[in-house]
Amino acid sequence: MRIGIIGAGQLGQMLGFAARDLGIECRFVDPSESPPAADAGEVTRRPFDDPEALANLAADCDVVTYEFENVPVEALLQIGERVPIYPPPDALRHAQDRLAEKRLFGSLQIPLPKYRAVDSKQDLQDAVDEIGLPLVVKTRRLGYDGKGQFVVRSADDVDAAWRTLGLQPLIAEEWVPFDYEVSAIGVRNVNGDIATYRLTHNEHADGILHLSRAPVEAPELAGLAEHYVGELLTHLNYVGVLALELFVADGHLLANEFAPRVHNSGHWTIEGAATSQFTNHLLAVTNQALGSTACRGHAGMLNLVGEIPDAARALPAADCWLHDYGKAARAGRKLGHITVVAPTADDRDDRLQEILEALRKV
Amino acid sequence: MRIGIIGAGQLGQMLGFAARDLGIECRFVDPSESPPAADAGEVTRRPFDDPEALANLAADCDVVTYEFENVPVEALLQIGERVPIYPPPDALRHAQDRLAEKRLFGSLQIPLPKYRAVDSKQDLQDAVDEIGLPLVVKTRRLGYDGKGQFVVRSADDVDAAWRTLGLQPLIAEEWVPFDYEVSAIGVRNVNGDIATYRLTHNEHADGILHLSRAPVEAPELAGLAEHYVGELLTHLNYVGVLALELFVADGHLLANEFAPRVHNSGHWTIEGAATSQFTNHLLAVTNQALGSTACRGHAGMLNLVGEIPDAARALPAADCWLHDYGKAARAGRKLGHITVVAPTADDRDDRLQEILEALRKV
Repeated sequence: MRIGIIGAGQLGQMLGFAARDLGIECRFVDPSESPPAADAGEVTRRPFDDPEALANLAADCDVVTYEFENVPVEALLQIGERVPIYPPPDALRHAQDRLAEKRLFGSLQIPLPKYRAVDSKQDLQDAVDEIGLPLVVKTRRLGYDGKGQFVVRSADDVDAAWRTLGLQPLIAEEWVPFDYEVSAIGVRNVNGDIATYRLTHNEHADGILHLSRAPVEAPELAGLAEHYVGELLTHLNYVGVLALELFVADGHLLANEFAPRVHNSGHWTIEGAATSQFTNHLLAVTNQALGSTACRGHAGMLNLVGEIPDAARALPAADCWLHDYGKAARAGRKLGHITVVAPTADDRDDRLQEILEALRKV
Repeated sequence: MRIGIIGAGQLGQMLGFAARDLGIECRFVDPSESPPAADAGEVTRRPFDDPEALANLAADCDVVTYEFENVPVEALLQIGERVPIYPPPDALRHAQDRLAEKRLFGSLQIPLPKYRAVDSKQDLQDAVDEIGLPLVVKTRRLGYDGKGQFVVRSADDVDAAWRTLGLQPLIAEEWVPFDYEVSAIGVRNVNGDIATYRLTHNEHADGILHLSRAPVEAPELAGLAEHYVGELLTHLNYVGVLALELFVADGHLLANEFAPRVHNSGHWTIEGAATSQFTNHLLAVTNQALGSTACRGHAGMLNLVGEIPDAARALPAADCWLHDYGKAARAGRKLGHITVVAPTADDRDDRLQEILEALRKV
């Protein structure tokens, strides 16, 4: 069994390590010079949408998947003419367009913030009237290098927002004063079996995931979130892992976005769950029985962004694991993560606190 | 003087050859294995939007330009923080979104086919009612590998069109039964000086430009087209070469799209005009006086697509030039072109006919 993976970043690397344990060979396509997943399989150094590289991947592999969302759907459809491609390209198509994504949430009765498509300055003005202020204007498609958002705080900002982002498909979204963010990670195999992980609590810093903790001790929210993920997986005829990010505002869930792939907020599952998201993704796309998603305790995951402090290398212990993706250091780049697993939530939070202090001291 | 060029295809190659004659050095960024422009300057083999490669290009060059339209505008803006980037990223932003492009034409009183933004099946149904049948549904952004168009011939096609292209920003356009297509190529330097080439007549085959001929002998149309190009160049505060493609239907011009770069339909200017589009683009972005765009006679340009027949290599003569881009042969790929220049339009057309027959015979 050989799996083709588009993208050879850390997600590809962790998929590759999980594949090795399952006796599955991985091949990757990625243009980076030293992609992390080079440790885990052969990498063809070509752009993610290179027709020849993708045709070769399809010819060489039994099934193709992707760990990178910015691939043209048409490229995946061409692969799909030859071998199965999972998650289904139609799921990626929804995820790539914020308008399609929000309409999907709406059609499945998943609550979400107010929004409006914006194609002109007048549309943006109308959005201010309908949704109120502040609101966030975003490009409908993924922005370059995380760009592509503008917060409109007053009516005076409309001009500047249009100057900055206008002339491309946009969406205006209600600015939700949420209490915290959670992600619900689910997986569905070719057969249609579904499993979901316990809800994960996420904290961001500078727009990048900083800290994830699971499980969230809020059975009602967890049950609802699990239901929403199930709706998405079933409706999309989905195969693989899917991560749904939600805001918790005033005790209610509001869907923010979903990722049709393994997700940073699920890295704790490597040590913190009976079966990791990576293993379950591979089991799903090769149509094997899914593994248990049960927690092994209370897990915390800390992203290492920009640098891996020397202190992090001294940490690993029986309850603490360092993952170094082997990437060159650069500001804002995810270089690795630390996972802790503890018997109680308090123990975990104490341990995370210790670690944060140890890293800060250096 | 050193110019950075994003894209090292044949357009980059011809820019590079023109630069050599001007004593300008070129550096390129392009992920291809054997890019044509490698003959004309150093190529950094990285994706077009690679932040490091583009930062290095900006650091090493006096001005940066691009020959490839599928670059994120945000990437160009980052270059622009360091060195001038021409054509202005705002022009590319209009060109990358068919809706913004059409609204721009409208705002400048440039006539164009009827259109409507489409974000739902209902929008598409409304477009059928408003615009009539047949109509063409296109992705607002450039499609992958030329994909991303659907002709709706009957109301029954609406479902299929939505299934094929839906869930991304779309536009519906009137299907114009045009008589022929022309392109108007203009150039503007940093100083604001403008020059325009004589109008070019274009014929396509399988969606690829097959044959261009210039000048078009229709003074009224030419004058109008020249005026439209001037409006675009001025309004966009444009620097460099811009190509405006128009339909001629029932004696009237209708704008189809514009390209913020040197253009295939202007290749005849290398031998057929006093100053080529490539030289003028370089003069414009380095803010030198523009060269004369006068015709040297009547020119024809024949694209060589998929293969360069052996017969083509025997053709070159005093009135006929073969340009071989040095690319590997592949179906649908532009590998080279042949230009002829003759004293009269009839002589040119006879010569083109001879050449077409010679190429077919092999």
